[in-house]
Amino acid sequence: MNASYRPAPVHLLRIPTGEDLLGYLEEYVAAAGIEAAWLSYLGAVQSAALRYYDQDERQYCDFHIHQHLEVLSAMGNVSLLDGKPFIHTHASFADAAGRAFGGHVNYGCEVWAIEVKIEPFEGPAPVREFDEKTGLSLWSTP
Amino acid sequence: MNASYRPAPVHLLRIPTGEDLLGYLEEYVAAAGIEAAWLSYLGAVQSAALRYYDQDERQYCDFHIHQHLEVLSAMGNVSLLDGKPFIHTHASFADAAGRAFGGHVNYGCEVWAIEVKIEPFEGPAPVREFDEKTGLSLWSTP
Amino acid sequence: MNASYRPAPVHLLRIPTGEDLLGYLEEYVAAAGIEAAWLSYLGAVQSAALRYYDQDERQYCDFHIHQHLEVLSAMGNVSLLDGKPFIHTHASFADAAGRAFGGHVNYGCEVWAIEVKIEPFEGPAPVREFDEKTGLSLWSTP
Repeated sequence: MNASYRPAPVHLLRIPTGEDLLGYLEEYVAAAGIEAAWLSYLGAVQSAALRYYDQDERQYCDFHIHQHLEVLSAMGNVSLLDGKPFIHTHASFADAAGRAFGGHVNYGCEVWAIEVKIEPFEGPAPVREFDEKTGLSLWSTP
Repeated sequence: MNASYRPAPVHLLRIPTGEDLLGYLEEYVAAAGIEAAWLSYLGAVQSAALRYYDQDERQYCDFHIHQHLEVLSAMGNVSLLDGKPFIHTHASFADAAGRAFGGHVNYGCEVWAIEVKIEPFEGPAPVREFDEKTGLSLWSTP
Repeated sequence: MNASYRPAPVHLLRIPTGEDLLGYLEEYVAAAGIEAAWLSYLGAVQSAALRYYDQDERQYCDFHIHQHLEVLSAMGNVSLLDGKPFIHTHASFADAAGRAFGGHVNYGCEVWAIEVKIEPFEGPAPVREFDEKTGLSLWSTP
């Protein structure tokens, strides 16, 4: 799993205003046939729908920040879950006072303007499988 | 615009202490002839000059944090605006108590020590054009 | 030093639950013979051990956040210090309320699940040397 991945040409794109951040990325990678990639993006959203994973209860807690926010830094990856490309991404945001927030990106982040770099990798994609210890779908470890 | 960009060799550099973060990056990419790139950096600044874009008023609100701050994570890109290389970058910072802040990086961030990766891309650079919906200069959408 | 680095194949890996974040990365790059690289990662930790560099006193102030935290965005690099691979990395985190924190990553960040991209570079690695101005071990400037 921690093998070497040869980088393929990079995609640069802007997500249109009003789109759902996660939904748009999912459709984009599916249409482009991308199964293994690293994502980086910045920009702004009209509101942020985020999740925090409760490590004791083994469940996600969802919350929504109903503010216009800058996207300071955001990362993620594409790998296979149940044979289909799956996006896992976290982002940090800032409000008008410069205060930072963040979490696991959920459906419902309404895009203002987001600029994305997608770095696809050649060869067999990493695969997510259910992990007993954490209750999450994770890559295997070395 | 969301075409594939072939990665060129990467630049690693340190911005000298006392330099203006954004000004230095601009001079560096101009001197290196870089028109399309992705930027990543971390380090520390002596103070941070940031902007928040007011999506209703369609204008930037500028603010300055007069503290020594760690740069936690920072991203940006280089593309063409009015035919010249233009840098768009956001950064997240932390103060002595570990609290995080951030925004759109403006002139006036005084560098303490910043380590930068610049990933240039081959081929025609993305181009920024005025976008009516947002009032910003943005890449075209697919 | 700000020369061009040719990207080598990328490593994708998950750090196992319970491992020390920084310690594991150090062992991984040593075992893989990586001397020059850029790191990106996201995920979650069981607690965070961080440092803030006091630019006046020229010393690190250490602090520990004893909470389960999402890792929003994290970056770092590998270069040579005293002839050995050295990891420098900063990370931003969020608590259950979405509030963001961060700093220089120290030993003691207990991993819940972390997904890492390591981009090694070919050719001679950047070298860290003591810098009088800052009191830090830094890359040379152009």
